[in-house]
Amino acid sequence: MLPTSENTKIQNFGECTIESPIAAALRAGQTEGSLVSESEKIRYRVEINQSNPDQEDIFFEKAGPREKIFFNPAKTTAAIVTCGGVSPGLNNVIRSIVLELYYNYGVKSILGFQYGYLGFTTNAPAKPIGLTPEIVKDINKLGGSFIGSSRGPVDAETIIDTLVRYGIDILFTVGGDGTQRGAQEIVAEAQKRNAKVSIIGIPKTIDNDILYVYQTFGFATAVEQAKNVITCAAVEATSYQNTISIVKLMGRDAGFIAAMSTIAAIDVDFCLIPEVPFNLEGEAGFYALVENKLRDKGSAVIVVSEGAGQEFFENLETTFDISGNRQQHDIGAFLKSKLSTYFKEKKLPITLRYFDPSYSIRSVPANVSDSLFCDRFARAAVHAGMCGKTNMMIGFWYNNVTHIPLSLLGNDRKRINPSGGLWGDVLSITGQPPRIGV
Amino acid sequence: MLPTSENTKIQNFGECTIESPIAAALRAGQTEGSLVSESEKIRYRVEINQSNPDQEDIFFEKAGPREKIFFNPAKTTAAIVTCGGVSPGLNNVIRSIVLELYYNYGVKSILGFQYGYLGFTTNAPAKPIGLTPEIVKDINKLGGSFIGSSRGPVDAETIIDTLVRYGIDILFTVGGDGTQRGAQEIVAEAQKRNAKVSIIGIPKTIDNDILYVYQTFGFATAVEQAKNVITCAAVEATSYQNTISIVKLMGRDAGFIAAMSTIAAIDVDFCLIPEVPFNLEGEAGFYALVENKLRDKGSAVIVVSEGAGQEFFENLETTFDISGNRQQHDIGAFLKSKLSTYFKEKKLPITLRYFDPSYSIRSVPANVSDSLFCDRFARAAVHAGMCGKTNMMIGFWYNNVTHIPLSLLGNDRKRINPSGGLWGDVLSITGQPPRIGV
Amino acid sequence: MLPTSENTKIQNFGECTIESPIAAALRAGQTEGSLVSESEKIRYRVEINQSNPDQEDIFFEKAGPREKIFFNPAKTTAAIVTCGGVSPGLNNVIRSIVLELYYNYGVKSILGFQYGYLGFTTNAPAKPIGLTPEIVKDINKLGGSFIGSSRGPVDAETIIDTLVRYGIDILFTVGGDGTQRGAQEIVAEAQKRNAKVSIIGIPKTIDNDILYVYQTFGFATAVEQAKNVITCAAVEATSYQNTISIVKLMGRDAGFIAAMSTIAAIDVDFCLIPEVPFNLEGEAGFYALVENKLRDKGSAVIVVSEGAGQEFFENLETTFDISGNRQQHDIGAFLKSKLSTYFKEKKLPITLRYFDPSYSIRSVPANVSDSLFCDRFARAAVHAGMCGKTNMMIGFWYNNVTHIPLSLLGNDRKRINPSGGLWGDVLSITGQPPRIGV
Amino acid sequence: MLPTSENTKIQNFGECTIESPIAAALRAGQTEGSLVSESEKIRYRVEINQSNPDQEDIFFEKAGPREKIFFNPAKTTAAIVTCGGVSPGLNNVIRSIVLELYYNYGVKSILGFQYGYLGFTTNAPAKPIGLTPEIVKDINKLGGSFIGSSRGPVDAETIIDTLVRYGIDILFTVGGDGTQRGAQEIVAEAQKRNAKVSIIGIPKTIDNDILYVYQTFGFATAVEQAKNVITCAAVEATSYQNTISIVKLMGRDAGFIAAMSTIAAIDVDFCLIPEVPFNLEGEAGFYALVENKLRDKGSAVIVVSEGAGQEFFENLETTFDISGNRQQHDIGAFLKSKLSTYFKEKKLPITLRYFDPSYSIRSVPANVSDSLFCDRFARAAVHAGMCGKTNMMIGFWYNNVTHIPLSLLGNDRKRINPSGGLWGDVLSITGQPPRIGV
Repeated sequence: MLPTSENTKIQNFGECTIESPIAAALRAGQTEGSLVSESEKIRYRVEINQSNPDQEDIFFEKAGPREKIFFNPAKTTAAIVTCGGVSPGLNNVIRSIVLELYYNYGVKSILGFQYGYLGFTTNAPAKPIGLTPEIVKDINKLGGSFIGSSRGPVDAETIIDTLVRYGIDILFTVGGDGTQRGAQEIVAEAQKRNAKVSIIGIPKTIDNDILYVYQTFGFATAVEQAKNVITCAAVEATSYQNTISIVKLMGRDAGFIAAMSTIAAIDVDFCLIPEVPFNLEGEAGFYALVENKLRDKGSAVIVVSEGAGQEFFENLETTFDISGNRQQHDIGAFLKSKLSTYFKEKKLPITLRYFDPSYSIRSVPANVSDSLFCDRFARAAVHAGMCGKTNMMIGFWYNNVTHIPLSLLGNDRKRINPSGGLWGDVLSITGQPPRIGV
Repeated sequence: MLPTSENTKIQNFGECTIESPIAAALRAGQTEGSLVSESEKIRYRVEINQSNPDQEDIFFEKAGPREKIFFNPAKTTAAIVTCGGVSPGLNNVIRSIVLELYYNYGVKSILGFQYGYLGFTTNAPAKPIGLTPEIVKDINKLGGSFIGSSRGPVDAETIIDTLVRYGIDILFTVGGDGTQRGAQEIVAEAQKRNAKVSIIGIPKTIDNDILYVYQTFGFATAVEQAKNVITCAAVEATSYQNTISIVKLMGRDAGFIAAMSTIAAIDVDFCLIPEVPFNLEGEAGFYALVENKLRDKGSAVIVVSEGAGQEFFENLETTFDISGNRQQHDIGAFLKSKLSTYFKEKKLPITLRYFDPSYSIRSVPANVSDSLFCDRFARAAVHAGMCGKTNMMIGFWYNNVTHIPLSLLGNDRKRINPSGGLWGDVLSITGQPPRIGV
Repeated sequence: MLPTSENTKIQNFGECTIESPIAAALRAGQTEGSLVSESEKIRYRVEINQSNPDQEDIFFEKAGPREKIFFNPAKTTAAIVTCGGVSPGLNNVIRSIVLELYYNYGVKSILGFQYGYLGFTTNAPAKPIGLTPEIVKDINKLGGSFIGSSRGPVDAETIIDTLVRYGIDILFTVGGDGTQRGAQEIVAEAQKRNAKVSIIGIPKTIDNDILYVYQTFGFATAVEQAKNVITCAAVEATSYQNTISIVKLMGRDAGFIAAMSTIAAIDVDFCLIPEVPFNLEGEAGFYALVENKLRDKGSAVIVVSEGAGQEFFENLETTFDISGNRQQHDIGAFLKSKLSTYFKEKKLPITLRYFDPSYSIRSVPANVSDSLFCDRFARAAVHAGMCGKTNMMIGFWYNNVTHIPLSLLGNDRKRINPSGGLWGDVLSITGQPPRIGV
Repeated sequence: MLPTSENTKIQNFGECTIESPIAAALRAGQTEGSLVSESEKIRYRVEINQSNPDQEDIFFEKAGPREKIFFNPAKTTAAIVTCGGVSPGLNNVIRSIVLELYYNYGVKSILGFQYGYLGFTTNAPAKPIGLTPEIVKDINKLGGSFIGSSRGPVDAETIIDTLVRYGIDILFTVGGDGTQRGAQEIVAEAQKRNAKVSIIGIPKTIDNDILYVYQTFGFATAVEQAKNVITCAAVEATSYQNTISIVKLMGRDAGFIAAMSTIAAIDVDFCLIPEVPFNLEGEAGFYALVENKLRDKGSAVIVVSEGAGQEFFENLETTFDISGNRQQHDIGAFLKSKLSTYFKEKKLPITLRYFDPSYSIRSVPANVSDSLFCDRFARAAVHAGMCGKTNMMIGFWYNNVTHIPLSLLGNDRKRINPSGGLWGDVLSITGQPPRIGV
């Protein structure tokens, strides 16, 4: 869904009438920084092709501390839940939410629901835990989620039941686009019951494929880790004669990790992503290109997103995981097996190394770049929640943290533009043709 | 100098009439990616305060490969020089310039002038070396500059003499704002002689303080390294009773490294930057605040930019280094000595740890984030140079690589806004008052 | 084969009559250090159970520079070959051999045969390259082998043909126990032809399973990398309910990497190694223990050496790789599949994460500990070769570098003692029973 | 003091009569591993010069779990104290002591005295804290000491008073040679009062200079960190003309860190250690050698132990720190200033970079090698303590953990042998003369 001046508006519970402790501290000269007014906006478009300058200007609401807030800090209870696959930085997000609520707003009642939405059900594996600055002090040194996670939906009624039972005013949902889309049902259920529970999403997507979020936490760390594995793959490939290394990376619908780590590593011969289809057979097909590469330089390094080449499995039935995500067929194992067969038939003996590092990539602690994202996103989420905003998610647009209505996500995802500069850079580096076998 | 629709125009040598090999490859379907037309622009402003929406729109030229180029690749000789302090990523920049010129434009004659502008003089320590993909293959694994660097100006006539003698068509000057400002004299001298030498700057500033460059290479690595040292400083401070750790970081005029690494590390009690003056004495002065911190929690971690607190040296004479930069008085050593004296007088025995890691921070290889910057900047510089543009520098604005006229730099530097969000975040994290002792 | 006073003697080409340049430099006061005499020895046994003190004392020859050497440095040509799987530190070994030969002995003619023994054949993928200090300067920053490697035997006649053709006096064979055992045939062939080619082995075994070598290069780096992956596996396991992480590590016959990385990581519930058989079924079997662990703490982290549990494949045919190593059946995939089935039948829904990081572990550059091993081993090998010793390998025993006759290797490998302290430490940490299901 | 068959005996409180829970578990088949009998010993000498084989054999007691123990686990209270400078691995040691006591012996009462011996005094900054597996779970991810440290002695009477007041049976003292020597007074005081408090030392020495401890925890990490700084220093030195980098490293009396990190880094021109005096002036003096190096290769990298060259300060008064260690004069700053002056007089303009990374080196978490040391040492200390041994320290000799009577330490320290192999390797790598200016 494209943003318009209408669909970028953020829903809230009503007028903010309480002076924010931050505004009070500013007024008292106890701190510095800028309050953000509701009229401050971030443009949706910064690139202008002046041959066609007459595009309508569209804006996102800018995140940040407001002068007035909706919830009375002394009486507010906030909660955090982390959903879906782990991603570097979850613990930083949890920590910064707690620190901002506790120290800057004076909210002392903060709960962490354990194991994702499972933690809201009657057979939750564990009860919510109270979160304090002391408890979260060093959790950023650990990967994963301190409060656990889970996949799969839980019905909105159950969640609202639990939120109401615990007297939660603000729920921070740290999760992927599925989680954010699903959160709309929680909002609807809350509305039905007239429960003023602010639902504030924080986008977690190691694939970096959520719309209106230029980059989110976890992605930079993932690219760093992926680049290191590619370097290993290139070492293996060049240390032996006629060796092919295949690195399968995360990227269900979007090849950002594969593309960026290819640019960072440079030693890649083929980068295959979901956005750019390719053919296997024929003179200009993938197999032939790999063969040429082996004959020319004795090695080939292939980086492939898990979502690439799904067209080769079209005759197979589509399956869905517990969260409703379409399950990928394993393109890495497929290429490994197919290339083996191809070179056996060609009687060219090869060595094949297969790298499938996804779970090692996503479970490390956040690097410094991602730490900074986590802190900005978490604090912005707290500001939004305290103002009684709801049905929204934190966005990131042109270096600014923004508010994105959940409804704007629709069913789309951010993807690499095959005619754009990023993909052009990948082609420059690999030297591969733009459309393999097409 | 503020950008206007006038002063953002880029100078060039005339019409581009030769088809770019990249455009040819695109036309032939051998690659993919987007040519960028001269009419594509990047807005100067993306943040809008809608209470005052009537600002004039100003734009920067967008970088990228053009359809037509000015220099004939077969006859072009390009050169690279790195100037000033080393910074993580210099070798990546050198490498990507060579790879782009060689493989994508077919320019085979590439020289690296050694030891900065010294390499242009008659008593150069070493001759320029020929750069090839083979030679630069793995230099990104090393810190520093593969072709050496130096400080200090060399007169423009000497440089042009040498450029002409070697038949250089494009000179890539990788250096700080001093280097970029100085390059204007080389352009002027070339113009005087009617020498068509394109001068393309690539901004190197570990302090991240060059105008119109939101972030450049080296900075992310520096913050990462600085954060690690702060973590050590916090370990030292908290492992003993009444211990103060002082970490002096780079940041002559701008405190970005200090501020960002403080946010990433979190365990900081005081962050002092050039943009925010502070007082030492008195009840609310710095000494008293440190004393309170020691009495409250037994330790204090202080991060200080080298350019902070220069007002304390006002009676001392101002000196300049060989490059004409105003030399900083050593605020780190000053605070160390003053705090020692203060607590001796107060009869409060303290332990003081001093960290001065600047040379270890700037000499490491680029991390992955910076590698990506280097590659984008270097390739954009090649595109600009091949089009016969000159008197310009690569910029980075709202995620886009841009062209910045050198004249636009004026004498200003980018600095932290003491009323803005970044400084507000620092205050949130340290809990320090906005204006210490003021 | 157990060492005796007889079988620990080192073969050589005859009396050393040339003064070593190192001895000359020492005499001239140009360097310092200790020459090692042929009578210096290292005890085979240091642990004494005084209830039985009457063991015969056995000794290994101590490595180091001798006063006299056999080969005239000015006329000597040396060669290096790296064989089998890559291991962290190969490039450090190559570099230190070259530096020691070149600077300390004055041997300037040094060849690197490419792609292992393949490089000696008539259809070698590439010719040997000349190695100089300049070329090897920075290769230690790269993983893998700078001169390539290969698996599989090449007949001794071919190798000697090539050694003679190139006039090689000393061949350094960097390889595993297979390579070292095979080198005896090259020695025999040389002897048959009366060719005075010194064959000096440098033990490369990432599994750390070569006899009489307490620890060799690559192992420390491998344990470090493995430990990092185990930490990721533990993060995954504990971030979700009922999650099992399986980490398959290197260790064909010996579980040193699995055991040491388990001790370093601590967060491991089961460590399975080739030396300790285990059973799957039954009340005290592996499946039941994993189930108990899930029910108790909600997660289970399993570390398994690739050579563990091979008894489960006894009915399958035994295959051998090109180097003649018995091929392991894939115990990791086996356990993954079996545990899946087990819990499906038990109707206990689990999540299973599988980690197979071997190729990423072995292809990184050496860490600092391993760099030090590489340097000591490489220089010791040069000293031995220059003295005309042959049919031997570098060993490492009680902190000393030694000379080991190749014949002493027999067909045994070093393995973990299931009644010893190392395995006891693993049991302490995991809490697993000593013999699972037995 | 040289070990003899007499002075290597370990003191204890009497016969061990209680069956160890470990022995019980072994007997019940619940664990595996080897009990160590009191008659098992480790030879003091493994190197034999067979021209002189008639040395008396001397042995150290081997560490490990005994069959019988002295203290009843159910009634035992243990305590830990960390003294002196922080070192990588302190938290691992604390953690492994707690885990071994708690899980393998069933000792549940464990205290951590805070801030070293200060924590035993009446004006202790903080009370001892109870240590449990839960609390120490992740502390190994942090540098420093979780329970704090301090320098300086506290009188033995005060310490025994406190130990008795808290009912401590075993005190683990983690500290340097000063701490271990001082512990003998605590033992004596305990004896005087007939208090059966077992005092078990764990040697902490980042300089690696404690006698009878071949290597202890922290050292490998320190060498790794030091090597990284040397690499930075070499980058700085070679990126500019006529540049000298000086790296001052830890090493008060022994140059192990300087020597080992020099070997690992290789890019070092001069390594100066306390064991090898050198002269500054004259044709073959240090200044002249540095000048030659600059004229030859344009750069010089100098690594210097803090304790090197103390002879240049002989006329200055000797001072002692609070722990009674002789204070080093700052050789790094001295050389920096002297070299500046020298080249100013020679009118050779140089750039000088100074690196003083000690506090950043010692405050990082332990690397994997050191983690393994920590675990072995900590568990061995627990075994010894539970047996009622006292007045001893954990040693490490020829790969075995041993028991060392504190009295054996005397006043000596372990130092580099200037005629030995390690120093010979350093000379090989740097090319420096063995005795500079002598």
